[in-house]
Amino acid sequence: MMKTTKAAAKAAAFLKQKKYRTEIGEYLVEGLRNVEEAVEYAITKMIFYVPSDDPRLNKLLQRAAEKSIAVSETFEGYMAQISDTATPQGVIGVCKMPETKLADVFRPGKMVLVLDRIQDPGNLGTIIRTADAAGIGGIVSLVGTVDAYNPKVVRSAMGSIFHIPLAENVTEAEFLNCALEHRYITVATAMEGGTSIFDARPQDKVALIVGNEANGVSSTLLQSANARYYIPMKGRAESLNVAMAAGIIMFELNK
Amino acid sequence: MMKTTKAAAKAAAFLKQKKYRTEIGEYLVEGLRNVEEAVEYAITKMIFYVPSDDPRLNKLLQRAAEKSIAVSETFEGYMAQISDTATPQGVIGVCKMPETKLADVFRPGKMVLVLDRIQDPGNLGTIIRTADAAGIGGIVSLVGTVDAYNPKVVRSAMGSIFHIPLAENVTEAEFLNCALEHRYITVATAMEGGTSIFDARPQDKVALIVGNEANGVSSTLLQSANARYYIPMKGRAESLNVAMAAGIIMFELNK
Repeated sequence: MMKTTKAAAKAAAFLKQKKYRTEIGEYLVEGLRNVEEAVEYAITKMIFYVPSDDPRLNKLLQRAAEKSIAVSETFEGYMAQISDTATPQGVIGVCKMPETKLADVFRPGKMVLVLDRIQDPGNLGTIIRTADAAGIGGIVSLVGTVDAYNPKVVRSAMGSIFHIPLAENVTEAEFLNCALEHRYITVATAMEGGTSIFDARPQDKVALIVGNEANGVSSTLLQSANARYYIPMKGRAESLNVAMAAGIIMFELNK
Repeated sequence: MMKTTKAAAKAAAFLKQKKYRTEIGEYLVEGLRNVEEAVEYAITKMIFYVPSDDPRLNKLLQRAAEKSIAVSETFEGYMAQISDTATPQGVIGVCKMPETKLADVFRPGKMVLVLDRIQDPGNLGTIIRTADAAGIGGIVSLVGTVDAYNPKVVRSAMGSIFHIPLAENVTEAEFLNCALEHRYITVATAMEGGTSIFDARPQDKVALIVGNEANGVSSTLLQSANARYYIPMKGRAESLNVAMAAGIIMFELNK
């Protein structure tokens, strides 16, 4: 039984910062359910835990042992240091970032979701979770989108970040070229103009682009996209939250 | 030009607590866009503001004057005291709670949304915003749902709370009776069982029930509902966020 050293806790806590995540190629996964999913679907290197008699935690540790994942017994003080939340759940995993190439995201018969400068970590996490539920094949995160391995994104994605290939730091030109090579239709979402999402014909090879919370999809992408879809709005609401809009469109196109 | 007194700031700050909101029948509305909407669509009694040369703020104050709404010049210290956020935006309205009766929510030809013990203020705000955008006619908040006039709900509803009639503290029995009287079909949403939302026929008089984040719709409502709808899930996500699920269903049924 390994016990967490002060140095190990400090090293793990550094992974809350993007520059260290990028340098080391690892990220943190917090909470029981998320770590359970990580153990099954991600490359988990290490699990920090505070001992308890929670059977679910103990089952997780047993599963980690079966998969030869190192576990490190720690205490609340170190946990609070590593954790990104005010009330840590008592289990945090350290995972290796997958080396997803842009082409890996284009999977036969499956829709691609493209994130154009999404800023809010909670929105990004919800979008990833919903994309998983909608059966999206892969995600392209364009330059300027919040880091998908930010602890808040990972937490709100509820395990779905381990289920879908996601390519980060992709430029608009790289994405457009790759979509063309794979014969995907590019569809930009917009507040208005183009086709109502409820009139759109379902198609296999679609790359759906959702845009920045304040400014929407970039003008380059809007202009180069093969089609433009909008959600018809009733009532007096000015707009939908970007994650909500993305969810409605993904489910409608993938039903 | 009235200046905010210490006593007035203190009295307004009390409205962050539910018991005072209920007692006094008033609530707080924070942020420029929200207060703009409140001035147009709610019963706004007073606006606290920190003077600035922001033309949008000054236009708002002018509009308030036209509508004979009292304005009170204040400073950052008092604003921080009244505000529910870490970084107050410099304008907060005090509004009177509307006296919405349950029957007011059932409007000709419009769907009703029923909230069964929704707990998270952010979820509730997003649901109200999305209901507005989807063209829902009214909202029933059942006993046990978080207070719709909680500052966080009001903030995340982005003005939509002023656009839709919402009846609070309704019991299951009162709702079921009122739906029957108005000849509305009651539809419970569930993780599985019943009809796929994408196979459901659009109907005018539907009361759509969405349930608690952890436990879903109550067993009484599940059993007494005329139909049960679910969102077919692909991928490996275990569930959708309740606001997301509600949004997908509302748009699909109201398209």
